[in-house]
Amino acid sequence: MSNSIGRIFRLTTFGESHGAAIGGIVEGCPAGVSLDLAEIQLDLDRRKPGQSHLTTQRKESDTVQVLSGVFEDKTTGAPIGFIIPNEDQRSKDYSHIKDTFRPSHADYTFDQKYGHRDYRGGGRSSARETASRVAGGAIARVFLKTLGVSVTAWVERVKDVELPFQHVAYTREQVESNLVRCPDATVAANMQQLIEQARKEGDTLGGAIRCVIEGVSAGWGEPVFGKLHAELAKAMVSINAVKGFEIGSGIAGTKQAGSQQNDAFVQVDGETSTTTNNSGGIQGGISNGQQIHFSVAFKPVATIMKDQQSVDKDGNAVEVKGKGRHDPCVLPRAVAIVEAMAALVLADASLIARTNK
Amino acid sequence: MSNSIGRIFRLTTFGESHGAAIGGIVEGCPAGVSLDLAEIQLDLDRRKPGQSHLTTQRKESDTVQVLSGVFEDKTTGAPIGFIIPNEDQRSKDYSHIKDTFRPSHADYTFDQKYGHRDYRGGGRSSARETASRVAGGAIARVFLKTLGVSVTAWVERVKDVELPFQHVAYTREQVESNLVRCPDATVAANMQQLIEQARKEGDTLGGAIRCVIEGVSAGWGEPVFGKLHAELAKAMVSINAVKGFEIGSGIAGTKQAGSQQNDAFVQVDGETSTTTNNSGGIQGGISNGQQIHFSVAFKPVATIMKDQQSVDKDGNAVEVKGKGRHDPCVLPRAVAIVEAMAALVLADASLIARTNK
Amino acid sequence: MSNSIGRIFRLTTFGESHGAAIGGIVEGCPAGVSLDLAEIQLDLDRRKPGQSHLTTQRKESDTVQVLSGVFEDKTTGAPIGFIIPNEDQRSKDYSHIKDTFRPSHADYTFDQKYGHRDYRGGGRSSARETASRVAGGAIARVFLKTLGVSVTAWVERVKDVELPFQHVAYTREQVESNLVRCPDATVAANMQQLIEQARKEGDTLGGAIRCVIEGVSAGWGEPVFGKLHAELAKAMVSINAVKGFEIGSGIAGTKQAGSQQNDAFVQVDGETSTTTNNSGGIQGGISNGQQIHFSVAFKPVATIMKDQQSVDKDGNAVEVKGKGRHDPCVLPRAVAIVEAMAALVLADASLIARTNK
Amino acid sequence: MSNSIGRIFRLTTFGESHGAAIGGIVEGCPAGVSLDLAEIQLDLDRRKPGQSHLTTQRKESDTVQVLSGVFEDKTTGAPIGFIIPNEDQRSKDYSHIKDTFRPSHADYTFDQKYGHRDYRGGGRSSARETASRVAGGAIARVFLKTLGVSVTAWVERVKDVELPFQHVAYTREQVESNLVRCPDATVAANMQQLIEQARKEGDTLGGAIRCVIEGVSAGWGEPVFGKLHAELAKAMVSINAVKGFEIGSGIAGTKQAGSQQNDAFVQVDGETSTTTNNSGGIQGGISNGQQIHFSVAFKPVATIMKDQQSVDKDGNAVEVKGKGRHDPCVLPRAVAIVEAMAALVLADASLIARTNK
Repeated sequence: MSNSIGRIFRLTTFGESHGAAIGGIVEGCPAGVSLDLAEIQLDLDRRKPGQSHLTTQRKESDTVQVLSGVFEDKTTGAPIGFIIPNEDQRSKDYSHIKDTFRPSHADYTFDQKYGHRDYRGGGRSSARETASRVAGGAIARVFLKTLGVSVTAWVERVKDVELPFQHVAYTREQVESNLVRCPDATVAANMQQLIEQARKEGDTLGGAIRCVIEGVSAGWGEPVFGKLHAELAKAMVSINAVKGFEIGSGIAGTKQAGSQQNDAFVQVDGETSTTTNNSGGIQGGISNGQQIHFSVAFKPVATIMKDQQSVDKDGNAVEVKGKGRHDPCVLPRAVAIVEAMAALVLADASLIARTNK
Repeated sequence: MSNSIGRIFRLTTFGESHGAAIGGIVEGCPAGVSLDLAEIQLDLDRRKPGQSHLTTQRKESDTVQVLSGVFEDKTTGAPIGFIIPNEDQRSKDYSHIKDTFRPSHADYTFDQKYGHRDYRGGGRSSARETASRVAGGAIARVFLKTLGVSVTAWVERVKDVELPFQHVAYTREQVESNLVRCPDATVAANMQQLIEQARKEGDTLGGAIRCVIEGVSAGWGEPVFGKLHAELAKAMVSINAVKGFEIGSGIAGTKQAGSQQNDAFVQVDGETSTTTNNSGGIQGGISNGQQIHFSVAFKPVATIMKDQQSVDKDGNAVEVKGKGRHDPCVLPRAVAIVEAMAALVLADASLIARTNK
Repeated sequence: MSNSIGRIFRLTTFGESHGAAIGGIVEGCPAGVSLDLAEIQLDLDRRKPGQSHLTTQRKESDTVQVLSGVFEDKTTGAPIGFIIPNEDQRSKDYSHIKDTFRPSHADYTFDQKYGHRDYRGGGRSSARETASRVAGGAIARVFLKTLGVSVTAWVERVKDVELPFQHVAYTREQVESNLVRCPDATVAANMQQLIEQARKEGDTLGGAIRCVIEGVSAGWGEPVFGKLHAELAKAMVSINAVKGFEIGSGIAGTKQAGSQQNDAFVQVDGETSTTTNNSGGIQGGISNGQQIHFSVAFKPVATIMKDQQSVDKDGNAVEVKGKGRHDPCVLPRAVAIVEAMAALVLADASLIARTNK
Repeated sequence: MSNSIGRIFRLTTFGESHGAAIGGIVEGCPAGVSLDLAEIQLDLDRRKPGQSHLTTQRKESDTVQVLSGVFEDKTTGAPIGFIIPNEDQRSKDYSHIKDTFRPSHADYTFDQKYGHRDYRGGGRSSARETASRVAGGAIARVFLKTLGVSVTAWVERVKDVELPFQHVAYTREQVESNLVRCPDATVAANMQQLIEQARKEGDTLGGAIRCVIEGVSAGWGEPVFGKLHAELAKAMVSINAVKGFEIGSGIAGTKQAGSQQNDAFVQVDGETSTTTNNSGGIQGGISNGQQIHFSVAFKPVATIMKDQQSVDKDGNAVEVKGKGRHDPCVLPRAVAIVEAMAALVLADASLIARTNK
């Protein structure tokens, strides 16, 4: 079931980098939700390659086709099957790595696990798979909108250039106002400079994405193993290249005393609220009605334009040549993926919460 | 299913802080594993309250009783049911919070989610529940030992006093050599001083625990949503008070360039190995045969011995009095919990890996 | 997960015939349900051995202890852990079958599957495990009652003596009015005679139980693989000794033409109803608001008081002696088990139905 | 998860009768299995409409396209995504039932459950969905073949014309030797006559399919809720129009005494075997190495060419006209579906059995 996420609102994906198509099935979306294909496509466009000079130049239109589950533009409760045809496959680009393990890729581990693998473009381990997540997440987002819930992410750090979190949620317009998807123009410019420099050097950069979810009522998420932030952690860490997850005040907050970290309850306009939100909107694994926010750290992508030492299947030392098309920094494209995964987790939590009392 | 973790090797827990007993069921442990009750008890003793002056003085012997699944000291493949009676329950201690929400506890969110809740000691949200995790994890650990896998965790940071990770695995003896469970005597002494200071002030401290897993062969863990480090992330973040998870080089590594982060493959003694281990032993979600290591950050526990502002059920401002027994720093006790959760995830991954080819 | 049933409202059981206790965990029961322990005990008493001369004389009080999930007599939404201590264990009775496979028992298959098994009383394969089902099912039944749903089963056939189904639901009082639990006194007397005869001969008899569920609103159950009657089929066939499952008009109905079988829709008192109910209250896997009814066929239990030919672990021919305590006919006790399993399936379906639109 | 079946080897399907395509995802098929697309197509051809005058004349080529999970004609362990385009959609045929509930179809229950539904051809409730089952099952069958396991089903009864089960497994050639898929020519001729008569009368007939599985080693299937025959029961009863499931000697066997039903163990050629096989190859939910056999009863399909009384959405009495294309008897086509579902259950059980000891 490692190709699925969610218990009731559930996405299952399939597809490799160089097959005919990738795709997935969304189950559990309630019936009667108005689903505009353009909304799904919009999210896919934000993730797709080739969207700017900061990303890989591989060209994929990433056009989604919905095959089921929608009738007269509304969901029917039936599973929503969709495919995204692969277009710009240059399988020959990968013949040189057929028997060679690229450093910090999954070539070696897939080989050990399965024996037989589709080496082209990383096969199932390719980040191309995340397009299916974005399509599924877009459906979740549309459903969440009917509940008044919004999900917004942005690039908060590239390497060590950072936009400190201010407990505000930026608008999508602000996020989309530049190529980096960092809502502060000055910081974004510095980030862009770093990325362009890395591209020039054939190197890659990592960073972090902040995600804010607003409009979640108190009571979503489950105690013990199914805590809402535990589900978010799994969803985020399952994204290619993710190395760290922090909820609320995160690791910085663990350097404070309890008396500093605790979020005092207070009554505001007849609603129970908190004076601070170090908890990130989740207490005991359950949403408390405040803004949910967390940060996801991405390593620099493993494909670099520099030659690297490695071994082949037979254990011989080989040199992996730096060539092909790649992303110098995956963060700007990953914003859509983080949002998609968050939307999937929240949609599921919202449905399970209907069964609690 | 939020009370369960694992697909094949699975733990399901029950129990509240002030009920008759807590307990759980371990399913999927292969038959024929020699199971010595003393090994389970040993782990429980490392987690139990009252073990030193650095922990809460609540007294629980935490004696586990195995009710099924073991015959003639060996597992039978049947589910292993166990209970841990609750002993030192002072329910009256909690009557004052019946209608009051303690800051950064789960009182408010449980109330919103369920309407009716067992407020005594936090009920199901109490960290007492983690004793069942430790019992279940101890069984997983015994099983993993038959595969040559060991799991060792230690306190790597209290507040801002830190033992930098050196890519070695300490022995349990080293970890157990002091009350803090930090294997470096000097650093441990500094940590202890911090904790004693916090206790004196009625305050609490957080920090981080490093966990190292050795002996895992290449090929455990699943692609896409079931990545091994995604499962670890969920397991760790589901522990009470956890705010962050980092795999391998973690967030620090995301500030490096790809050319610095990539782990070059190299042949050592006829085995494919890596020169560095920034990946933390997992690539593409699958173990690569190297040491698996990750760090888990804990916030200071929410129960402090200071008065705090809050609201009650009716929205009235109230003062939560700081009283009762509490842990000034949960890290030393949480070492056993982190190990237990890691063992559960790995045991499950090992069994699923049997089905891959 | 073979020890669990249900997706949201879920029972997980543990325990062997001769361990310290059997028990289970009920997850997903909504909070706020008034739970009277006596109601659970009542169902257990209907299943327990030794209740009359028609059943095994093994004595078990089958006293259930609820350990969690209930506070001030109401469910809290937390998992409900319970145990039922084993009392009348005569382990010596089974030493003779340590290395011998009893015909049509699970001794051989457990041995092949697990290598190491608890042979005493059949261990995990013993029908004693069904006591945990009855306890869990009783909780489901209490929850269903809050929704206006009732579950009633009775013995409709012993060997070839049958009470034809009349599309009425008998009351529990009618069912409990005789030892056989067949609501027609005359038919019950004939059944009782058959059973007493079988007991005298050291033989055993099978038969069938009819179950009727009333008060289910239209819309429970899920399409495709999760059809309501498919879940019922699995639940029923998972009961020890069950050989067949029929929904609605069952196999007899498959000998009719479509024009005879179809249930015409009709409007009655402003409600859409059907003129006949061959569908058994389920169409396309989803309840239609009519009475749900099905039949479950049980083989004669495998333990007979006659000597039988078999082999031992080494393949030597051996004679299995007919001795010990046994049920000449399990049907009267199984009524409570069928009801329990039905209640579990329905409780789960009711909660999932909350997420459909 | 009602669109999925299986825990490790798992099929998830999507698609409606009149959407662009139906399809599914097969997860958990081990890597390295040689997969010939023609084998999948062969099974689809046995299920497809229009294959003879005994079936509906709706024309669908049912051409499967595999989109992922197979590389150089071998499985990679990645999910196998596939689609089957819908071709012969005459949506206008269904406009008359937009607001009308056809007797014993799922129109009413889907309407009640989801509010908004795709009424064309029954939408998700259409038996067209079973084509995805057959495609997924064909993959399972290919995998099982590598383990020496074969699955063969045939029509054993149409209405009351029956081929008594002789505990032999017919070959596929024998089954395919006539249009009815009953391996006895004389009985098949009688069945064919019944079906032709029903077609002429605009009526429909039901019956039963027997399925035999050979080559399963002892130890597959899980105790308690996951019994192998319980999983088979769920899989079979989930097929459209199924009303009953019988394992082994089935309901007839429940009319015998225990001394007649028990299968004596005996040693044959150094292997433990049984003298009879009333158990149907499964004891205590676990395979015993004997032939697995069971019977599945199908009601006559609900679509008849006769006018029927019903109601519409507003509760008005209406007449449902008998028109369109339909199957007078679905049994010959359902043979492939029964085999597919059996193969899926067995493939899953075989993989889980790898984790037992």
